Amino acid sequence: MSEAAVTLDGWYSLHEFRAINWPAWKTLSSEERQQVLNEFIGMLEEWNQTEENNEGSHALYTIVGQKADFMLMLLRPTMQQLNEIETAFNKTRFAEYTIPMYSYVSVVELSNYMAGKDGGDPMENPEVRARLFPKLPKAQHVCFYPMDKRRQGNDNWYMLPMEDRRNMMRSHGMIGRQYAGKVKQIITGSVGFDDWEWGVTLFADDVLQFKKLVYEMRFDEVSARFGEFGSFYVGNLLNIDGIERYFHV
Amino acid sequence: MSEAAVTLDGWYSLHEFRAINWPAWKTLSSEERQQVLNEFIGMLEEWNQTEENNEGSHALYTIVGQKADFMLMLLRPTMQQLNEIETAFNKTRFAEYTIPMYSYVSVVELSNYMAGKDGGDPMENPEVRARLFPKLPKAQHVCFYPMDKRRQGNDNWYMLPMEDRRNMMRSHGMIGRQYAGKVKQIITGSVGFDDWEWGVTLFADDVLQFKKLVYEMRFDEVSARFGEFGSFYVGNLLNIDGIERYFHV
Amino acid sequence: MSEAAVTLDGWYSLHEFRAINWPAWKTLSSEERQQVLNEFIGMLEEWNQTEENNEGSHALYTIVGQKADFMLMLLRPTMQQLNEIETAFNKTRFAEYTIPMYSYVSVVELSNYMAGKDGGDPMENPEVRARLFPKLPKAQHVCFYPMDKRRQGNDNWYMLPMEDRRNMMRSHGMIGRQYAGKVKQIITGSVGFDDWEWGVTLFADDVLQFKKLVYEMRFDEVSARFGEFGSFYVGNLLNIDGIERYFHV
Amino acid sequence: MSEAAVTLDGWYSLHEFRAINWPAWKTLSSEERQQVLNEFIGMLEEWNQTEENNEGSHALYTIVGQKADFMLMLLRPTMQQLNEIETAFNKTRFAEYTIPMYSYVSVVELSNYMAGKDGGDPMENPEVRARLFPKLPKAQHVCFYPMDKRRQGNDNWYMLPMEDRRNMMRSHGMIGRQYAGKVKQIITGSVGFDDWEWGVTLFADDVLQFKKLVYEMRFDEVSARFGEFGSFYVGNLLNIDGIERYFHV
Amino acid sequence: MSEAAVTLDGWYSLHEFRAINWPAWKTLSSEERQQVLNEFIGMLEEWNQTEENNEGSHALYTIVGQKADFMLMLLRPTMQQLNEIETAFNKTRFAEYTIPMYSYVSVVELSNYMAGKDGGDPMENPEVRARLFPKLPKAQHVCFYPMDKRRQGNDNWYMLPMEDRRNMMRSHGMIGRQYAGKVKQIITGSVGFDDWEWGVTLFADDVLQFKKLVYEMRFDEVSARFGEFGSFYVGNLLNIDGIERYFHV
Repeated sequence: MSEAAVTLDGWYSLHEFRAINWPAWKTLSSEERQQVLNEFIGMLEEWNQTEENNEGSHALYTIVGQKADFMLMLLRPTMQQLNEIETAFNKTRFAEYTIPMYSYVSVVELSNYMAGKDGGDPMENPEVRARLFPKLPKAQHVCFYPMDKRRQGNDNWYMLPMEDRRNMMRSHGMIGRQYAGKVKQIITGSVGFDDWEWGVTLFADDVLQFKKLVYEMRFDEVSARFGEFGSFYVGNLLNIDGIERYFHV
Repeated sequence: MSEAAVTLDGWYSLHEFRAINWPAWKTLSSEERQQVLNEFIGMLEEWNQTEENNEGSHALYTIVGQKADFMLMLLRPTMQQLNEIETAFNKTRFAEYTIPMYSYVSVVELSNYMAGKDGGDPMENPEVRARLFPKLPKAQHVCFYPMDKRRQGNDNWYMLPMEDRRNMMRSHGMIGRQYAGKVKQIITGSVGFDDWEWGVTLFADDVLQFKKLVYEMRFDEVSARFGEFGSFYVGNLLNIDGIERYFHV
Repeated sequence: MSEAAVTLDGWYSLHEFRAINWPAWKTLSSEERQQVLNEFIGMLEEWNQTEENNEGSHALYTIVGQKADFMLMLLRPTMQQLNEIETAFNKTRFAEYTIPMYSYVSVVELSNYMAGKDGGDPMENPEVRARLFPKLPKAQHVCFYPMDKRRQGNDNWYMLPMEDRRNMMRSHGMIGRQYAGKVKQIITGSVGFDDWEWGVTLFADDVLQFKKLVYEMRFDEVSARFGEFGSFYVGNLLNIDGIERYFHV
Repeated sequence: MSEAAVTLDGWYSLHEFRAINWPAWKTLSSEERQQVLNEFIGMLEEWNQTEENNEGSHALYTIVGQKADFMLMLLRPTMQQLNEIETAFNKTRFAEYTIPMYSYVSVVELSNYMAGKDGGDPMENPEVRARLFPKLPKAQHVCFYPMDKRRQGNDNWYMLPMEDRRNMMRSHGMIGRQYAGKVKQIITGSVGFDDWEWGVTLFADDVLQFKKLVYEMRFDEVSARFGEFGSFYVGNLLNIDGIERYFHV
Repeated sequence: MSEAAVTLDGWYSLHEFRAINWPAWKTLSSEERQQVLNEFIGMLEEWNQTEENNEGSHALYTIVGQKADFMLMLLRPTMQQLNEIETAFNKTRFAEYTIPMYSYVSVVELSNYMAGKDGGDPMENPEVRARLFPKLPKAQHVCFYPMDKRRQGNDNWYMLPMEDRRNMMRSHGMIGRQYAGKVKQIITGSVGFDDWEWGVTLFADDVLQFKKLVYEMRFDEVSARFGEFGSFYVGNLLNIDGIERYFHV
C-alpha cells in the first residue's frame, strides 16, 4: 500500500447552485417580491454577522449560462450547522422561486504534500488556521469545479509512491504561486462526502485568470495524466446592493 | 475460472433517499402538517417495535446537499417485507410531500475472505449473527455509497486468484480496524439486486472520520486499482424528537 | 471475421417497468379505483386466456426500490402483437396512474453455442420449443438485467474464435446447471431491437439464489472479462388476488 | 494523416421520435380528436404529394417500448425544408399531444469505400441517384440506430490506412448483400450535424432479419473492433389507414 | 511539464440554446404574441446597435431536431455584460415561452500554435483584433460543437512536446484553409469556464460544407487520436424578418 496523504481539515462547506424560476417570480406583486427578497437579505445579513464573529463565511455569485443562476458557498464549523442553514434556506419563500441545480458537500482541506515540517502543531499555526477557516474574498469573479485523481491503467495516482506524488504536487503548486495576488484558491476535500474527491473554488477580479491558470496547469503532469474534472461554473459577485437590481422585474 | 467468494447473508436492506417538496408542504395548514407528521412518526414507532423484537432495524438521517433531504435505511428478514414497508410508506400522506431521489436494494453480507475457520456453522455464531442481523447504531452521522470491483484491462478483480484477493481484502480490513470505535461499517451485497455490487453504510459520531477512512483506504491497492465508486451521501441523525423541528415551517 | 453465433428465436418479448403515481391514485374515489383496477384485471384475464391457448405468456411482479413499482413481462408471437398490447395498456385508465420507467424489447433466444447436433430440425424439437415459447413461471421472485458482451482492447468477445467462445459459454452453463430447480433463466436477445444485446430474466422462490448465481458467475471468465451489465431489477410476484391489496389505499 | 473517405450526399434527413401523451389525448372529445387527427393526416397527404413529385420522402412507424410511440423519418432536398416541416409539425394541435423523445439530423450518404470507378460523374448515375434520393419503402418494420467508428487506443478507425478501411468495409458489405431482398438499408451521415457519425435505418417485412443482420455483422472486424452503437429503435409500419385505429381511445 | 500553449483572448461568448414551448405559445392571443415578439425584436435591435458600435456581436439561428429550436450566440467585452444580457433575456415575457436546453460559456481565442512571430504586440495587429473581436457573419447556416483534447493512456495531448502539438495543429490548419471562403470558424476557449475545453462555431452558406470539413478533419491525427467531441448542433439563419413567420401560429 502507498503511503496515504494526510490532511488538515477546517470548516465544512456547501456549494449550492440554484436557477431562478423567473416566470413564477413575475407572478408576484412587486410588494411580495420585496418581502421575499427582504427575507433572503435578512438571512444574508445574519450570515454576515456569523462571518464577523469568525464562526463561518459565505459567498454569493451569479452564474453565467443555464447550469445555474446563482451559487451560494457556505462555510461552517460542523456538518449539522451546514445542514441547518440549508434547511432554513429551503424553508424560505425565496427558495420557492428557485430550482436546485447542483450542490457540493466538502470540507476545507490542506494536504501534507507541501506541508512545512517545523514540528509545531499546525492547528496552532495562524497561517494554517487562516487557510482552514478562511474568510471568503469578495472578488469580482468565482470559478468552481470538482475533480478526482485518476485511477486508470498506468495512470493511477493512488498507486504512486508518496515521493512521486509530492514532487508532482510541488511542481503544481509552483504554477499556482505565479498567480498569487491574481487568483485565490480554496481546496475543499469531499472524499466520503460527495461524488468527486475535491472541489476547487477560485476567486479573481480578472475572470480571464481562471482560464489562464487552469489551462497552464493542464500541461502539468499531475493534471495532464491524473486530473479528472467535473463541470465548471463561472460567475460574478452579487453583493447585497446588487441583489435588488438582479431580481427586479 | 477463479474461485468464487462465498457470502453469508442476513437481513434484506432498502436505502430510500427522498427530497422534501417544501413549497407543497407549506401549502398545508399547521394542523394538517401535524397530522401528516403524526402518521409518519406512528410508522417510525411501529418500526421501533419491530427493532425491539429483533425482527429488523432502521435508521433515519437528514442528507446534506441537493441529492436528498433524508435517507431511510430499512432492514427486514425478507424481500417481501421490505417491499411492503416501501409500499406502505408510498401510500402515506407524508410521502406525497417527498420526491424519490435514489434507492438501493441489497442484503447484509459477510464474505469469506476474512472468515474464521473454526469449523462450526457460522450462522450459529452469535458474533456473526450480530453482524448479519444488526441493530443499526444511533450515531450522529451516516455515510452511504455503492461500489463495484473493477473489471478493466489488467485491473480485473474477478480474474485474480482467491489468494490475491484474500490478501488484499485482509490488508483492507487492517485499515478498517484502526477506525474501530470511531466508524461502524455495514456492508450490504447487491449483486443481482441493484446496479452496483455493494453498498457501504458508515456510522460515526465524528463526521470527519468518514473522510479519513475512505481517503486512507483509497491508497490501498484493493481500492486504488479495483474500487469503482458511485455517489456519496452524507448526513446527520434525525431522531423522533428532531422530526418536528425539522419539518416545522 | 470470426464465425458468427447462430440463434433460434421464439416469442417476442416486452419488459415494461412502471412506477405508480400514488398521489394521483389517491385522488380517486374508492369506487373509481375499483373500476380502474377491474379494467386492468380484465386485461390480465384476457392475457391468461392467451397463455392457456399457448399463444403467449406474461408475468407481473412488484419491483423493490424507486426504479419501478411493478414490471410486466409480455411474450407474443409477433412484434405487432406486442405493440398492440402495449398500446392497449397505454390507453387504459389504469395506465394514467402509472409512470413509464424503463422498457426492454427483445425475443426469446437460444444460441448455438451449446446446441445439440442431432441433425433434426431444432424447431421441431419439443424441448427446444418449450424454451423458445415458454410459459413464464409463477415463482415468488423475479430478477431482470440487460447485458452486453464486451468489445474493448484485449477483451473483445466478438474477435474471439468460435471455439473459445463455445468453451467459455459451456463453462458458464455449468454454473447455471448447479442452480437447476432453484433458478429458472430466460434469455432474450435484443441485438437490433434495444440498447443492450441481451436481457436476462431469472425466476426463483428464494430471492437469495439470484445473488448467489450472478455473483458466482461473475468469477467466470465469460462474465469477468466479457460481461457488461445494465441496471438490475428485483421483485416479488403479484398475482391477481394480491392486486387489490397492493393498490388499496 | 490517413486518406479521408469521400462521400456522395443526397437528401437531408430528420428522424423524429415522439411519445403520445395518452392522458391528455383522452381529455379531448372524440370530435376534437378527429379534427386533430385530420390535421395530421392532411400533413401526411401533403408529404405523399411531395414524395410523388420526387421532392422528398417520409416514413411513419410506431415504436415498441417506452423510448417512443412513433417515429417520423423525413427526407428533403435542403436543411431549411427539413426545419420548416419540423416547425410546421410542432405548430400542429396534434404535436401538443406528443412528447419529444429523440431526434436525429443527417444526410443520405454513399461513401467511396465501395464506389465504382467507371469514370463518369456519379451524380449522373441513375443507380447512385436512386440511393441518394430514395423513396422510403413501405416495409412492415423499421430499425434505427446511430453509430460511430471507434477511436480508442489500438482500435482507432481514423488512423488506419485507406486500404485497410476499404477491405474491412468491403467484407462488411458482403454480409449486407446476403440480406438483399430481406433488409433494405439507408445510411445517413451526421458528422457535423448530430452527436453520432452515422444513422442506420433498416426496413424489413420480417422483423427478425434486423437481429440476424446486426448480430452477424457484430462478429465482423469493422463492427467488433470499430463499431460504437447508440440506442436501437424498432417498430411497425403505421399507414394512414392504421392511424385512426391507433389513436382511437 | 510540457510547455503550455499561450492564448490571445477576445470577447466573452455565450451560446444559448432554447426550445419553444409551442403549446403555451398558442394559448396567447395573436395580439399578445405580437407584443411578446416585439419585446424580443426590440432586444435584438439593441444588440444590432451594440454590434454597429463594435461593442459586441450576436447571431440567431434556428436549430434542426429536438435538441433546441433556436440558438443565440452573444459576444461581449466582459463576463458581467454577458451575464446581464442573459438575465435581461430571462426576464422577458418571450423567455417564458422558451425552455433552456443547453448553454456554453467561453471566450474568443487564438492560440500561439500558429502565431506569427513578427515581434509586435499581437493585440495591436488589426488582423488579430478582427479575429478576437469578430462581427459574426450572417451565413445561411451554423454548426456548433464543444470539444476536448484527449488525455488517455498513450493518447495524451497535454503530455506531448510543444513541437509535436504545433506540427499537428499546423497540419490541421491546412485542412481548414481549403475551406476558406466556404466555412468561417470561430474558436472559443472554455477551460475554467465550462465543461469542455473549446467551443467550435462554424458558419457557411452551404450546410454540407460542415460535414465535409469535420469529416475530413477526423482523419487528421489531431482529431483522430486527440479529439473528444460533445453534441453537435446545426441550424439555419433566422433574421429579424423571418422571426414573425417563424413564430406565427
